[in-house]
Amino acid sequence: MRESDKNAACTGADNLVAALKSGGVDTYFANPGTSEMQLVSAIDKIEGVQSVLALFEGVATGAADGYARVLNRPAGVLLHLGPGLGNGWANLHNARRAHVPVLNIVGDHAVDHLALDAPLTSDLDGIAQSISHTTVRPADQADLVAAGDRALAAAYQGGGQVSTLIVPSDLAWSAGQNAVPPLAQPTPTYDGVDDQTIDKAITALKGSGRRVIFAGGRALQGAALDQLGQIAQATGAELIAETFTARAERGAGRVPFKKLAYFAEMALDQLTGCEAIITVGTKSPVSFFAYPNVPSNLVPDGCAVISLASPTQDASAAIGALADHLGVAGSGIDQAARICPERPSGDLTADKCWQAMAALLPEGTILSEEAATSSVGLDVHMAGAAPFDHMQTMGGSIGQALPAALGAAIAAPDRKVVCATGDGGAMYTIQSLWSMARENLDVVTIIFANRSYAILNIELMRVGAQNPGPKALDMLDIGRPDMNFTQIARGMGVEAGRAETAAQFATLLDAAMQQKGPFLIEAVI
Amino acid sequence: MRESDKNAACTGADNLVAALKSGGVDTYFANPGTSEMQLVSAIDKIEGVQSVLALFEGVATGAADGYARVLNRPAGVLLHLGPGLGNGWANLHNARRAHVPVLNIVGDHAVDHLALDAPLTSDLDGIAQSISHTTVRPADQADLVAAGDRALAAAYQGGGQVSTLIVPSDLAWSAGQNAVPPLAQPTPTYDGVDDQTIDKAITALKGSGRRVIFAGGRALQGAALDQLGQIAQATGAELIAETFTARAERGAGRVPFKKLAYFAEMALDQLTGCEAIITVGTKSPVSFFAYPNVPSNLVPDGCAVISLASPTQDASAAIGALADHLGVAGSGIDQAARICPERPSGDLTADKCWQAMAALLPEGTILSEEAATSSVGLDVHMAGAAPFDHMQTMGGSIGQALPAALGAAIAAPDRKVVCATGDGGAMYTIQSLWSMARENLDVVTIIFANRSYAILNIELMRVGAQNPGPKALDMLDIGRPDMNFTQIARGMGVEAGRAETAAQFATLLDAAMQQKGPFLIEAVI
Repeated sequence: MRESDKNAACTGADNLVAALKSGGVDTYFANPGTSEMQLVSAIDKIEGVQSVLALFEGVATGAADGYARVLNRPAGVLLHLGPGLGNGWANLHNARRAHVPVLNIVGDHAVDHLALDAPLTSDLDGIAQSISHTTVRPADQADLVAAGDRALAAAYQGGGQVSTLIVPSDLAWSAGQNAVPPLAQPTPTYDGVDDQTIDKAITALKGSGRRVIFAGGRALQGAALDQLGQIAQATGAELIAETFTARAERGAGRVPFKKLAYFAEMALDQLTGCEAIITVGTKSPVSFFAYPNVPSNLVPDGCAVISLASPTQDASAAIGALADHLGVAGSGIDQAARICPERPSGDLTADKCWQAMAALLPEGTILSEEAATSSVGLDVHMAGAAPFDHMQTMGGSIGQALPAALGAAIAAPDRKVVCATGDGGAMYTIQSLWSMARENLDVVTIIFANRSYAILNIELMRVGAQNPGPKALDMLDIGRPDMNFTQIARGMGVEAGRAETAAQFATLLDAAMQQKGPFLIEAVI
Repeated sequence: MRESDKNAACTGADNLVAALKSGGVDTYFANPGTSEMQLVSAIDKIEGVQSVLALFEGVATGAADGYARVLNRPAGVLLHLGPGLGNGWANLHNARRAHVPVLNIVGDHAVDHLALDAPLTSDLDGIAQSISHTTVRPADQADLVAAGDRALAAAYQGGGQVSTLIVPSDLAWSAGQNAVPPLAQPTPTYDGVDDQTIDKAITALKGSGRRVIFAGGRALQGAALDQLGQIAQATGAELIAETFTARAERGAGRVPFKKLAYFAEMALDQLTGCEAIITVGTKSPVSFFAYPNVPSNLVPDGCAVISLASPTQDASAAIGALADHLGVAGSGIDQAARICPERPSGDLTADKCWQAMAALLPEGTILSEEAATSSVGLDVHMAGAAPFDHMQTMGGSIGQALPAALGAAIAAPDRKVVCATGDGGAMYTIQSLWSMARENLDVVTIIFANRSYAILNIELMRVGAQNPGPKALDMLDIGRPDMNFTQIARGMGVEAGRAETAAQFATLLDAAMQQKGPFLIEAVI
């Protein structure tokens, strides 16, 4: 607490923020309103607590997702009543699907004010419950800090959950206690994995025929990924990662893996002939969407599925146990080699952007990617890039990559963060750029500007809508008018450049990698 | 249906969109995804149905709010699963509080796909119920059109409600019926007003002492407003409108009224000494937020409150009955006079912007306003403006004025629409500008750029957070970095100019009023 505040009366909000700080919550992504003013004041007073302002709540929740993926601990997200939570809902959905810890703190009307049904009154508990694993509303002011403790603990359950604490403003402004005992910082808890499951996985892996280890979540990080590589090599099983990954460690020196295709038909082809699929850190593979006359369940007929560890179980521990049983410790790993492509030339395509990125992104880059149809070249070129972390949108709600990059940059200020996103997706949370400028974060944003919801043009055909007319095509075309992302970025304080050729892209990217601070490249493809 | 599609197989989606068209839904505000592709295809095929694409769902829902305020009938809002509804939630809250009809059509996964818990699966029913008066999920494909009919009817209840129809994608893509009977376009239904209430209101109005008619909603439009003026003049009661109005008819030739102040202390002062408050089209006055040691209920002790018509009752009919009983028909009305201010000069202030607007806005302008601290001059100067409609954010969730202006311009293509908004509020749904450019709408947007959540600087003090430090002040300051709204607007295809003096503002505004099409003025105040 600041010296000047030490003699001031302490509020409930001060107690809460101080207690959460002792529990490890030292960073807030915030878009506050009147009902959160005491919480703003408390953040102001408590030393060592930082707050990053967002102009829109989806930026704050997406940033908390990105932050948690890097640090495995929750940021606080400060939101204003039901509508604030509404604006943050979509990226909370993405965080929930990424199984990361997020702690929302949502201000509410004072208890007596709620009954009066003032304009900002809404079904706050209803919307909170629709997105949160756990929703905590303090019983009274004496319960405020304990409620914060319960909400914080809930965020760490199952490896990471969305937890929401509702704070009526009168509880925040009422006089607090002079000394609140510190909270213990929780450690993640997981659902258990039983020995029988380990045995089943071993039996399956030792079998013959085509066996696939289908991996996701923390199975694609650190020692777990190394061990998966050893297990795959020792048993002849193939390692295939889920289509989208929360934070996968990739590139040179890491265990290489294929990824399951996005479109159901391609994924079905990919898994044809499998006799056993061992899932770890993810669930049995299903298609993203259903399509007429295409199965949604991607497991081939007759293929056994062994769920070694679901996303809420401890994948690392399960993989470690498996590695021990199989005796693969110390065996070599087939690591990806560094392949530095030539700088691209000629017309600009998304593929050439990835080629340039594979050449130029420095070791340790965090890549926040939501490039949809423009992501095809990623797996081709980035397999041999300098080692990087690959973060993707886990819940399919676009508009996550920009705020996640913001959050990752706050979590890892010494690493380069690259956000690679489609133009359509970028526009959902474009306000992220302003927060990047404000915090002078080392984030380079690449906009794949194809002026289309290109994926939907494909999907329109795939769901059986043949022969689309002008109105339908127009609803998937975002090139009328073209957006100018360099102007939009500069309007929010981020310097930017446009690339219309591959050489221009490589030159801009190279320059951006040499400097620190936010920069945006509009790649017109 | 287009000639080329007449021989094509009809889908459930085709049936639904055609039926809703016969029920009066001819306009969609859309941000579709894969699960809505058949609905997109149906909108494409059905003649006389238009779709306005939004880059963000809050733009679509806010536009539906603005559209309904002008036309008193619902637009369809096409949204993608739970996250799409989440992004639209805040402006649905505003629409709900404005008591206007909105019909959401939310695509969902195919029924069999839901159980597989694919990435975009969420608690769609939960979030829908948290914001909708009515949520309809068709029982099966045969029920799809009937479900649409139920949802449409629900939108018209209580004068206007938020109604949500969930459409599983397999119901949309399955074969439909060749001929679907047309729906009847619903008429708004209201909760009844009993004669006893009318009598009570008459008795109160005929009493002595200070009597206030506290009016909102449709009581501030057309014949109802004229009659309120006659009643006030005949009885000596004062006419005070609710703090924020959904669509109030104001300016020269209309019945003038005061508005209830936003801050509780000022509103309490304003109502001091009242012996009776007759509410019509709104509820008994309460403060927007609670503050320590300030009552939230703004009714003075001992003052009678007669609820003539709540927002879900027919205010026009109740006022008509009152006027008949009081025999005021044919009596004169104290109309506001046209006062055309001088064009302002010198430094630019929000007040001078309103002065210029009062001089220059043409008759019939629709003013979509969310100017917060910059709105003070509105009531001063615009009372004598050419007759205009004043639309404000009804649920207190900022980011409504821009999309509401978009929707109003679609609803009334022959009228000038002016959106006057704070810079903070504008950034929540800034993507609205792109849809305005795309549709070449006659909307002039005025951004009051004070580079601050100025209202929160006031609120920070008011809730008792004294002596704010740098972190707190920084969380309310959006001037680090300054946004450049002319660049942001141009980046989305809207021409723009910046005014730094009052003369520059008046010149830009004058030019914008002389031309058609979207334009933005950044008023640096």
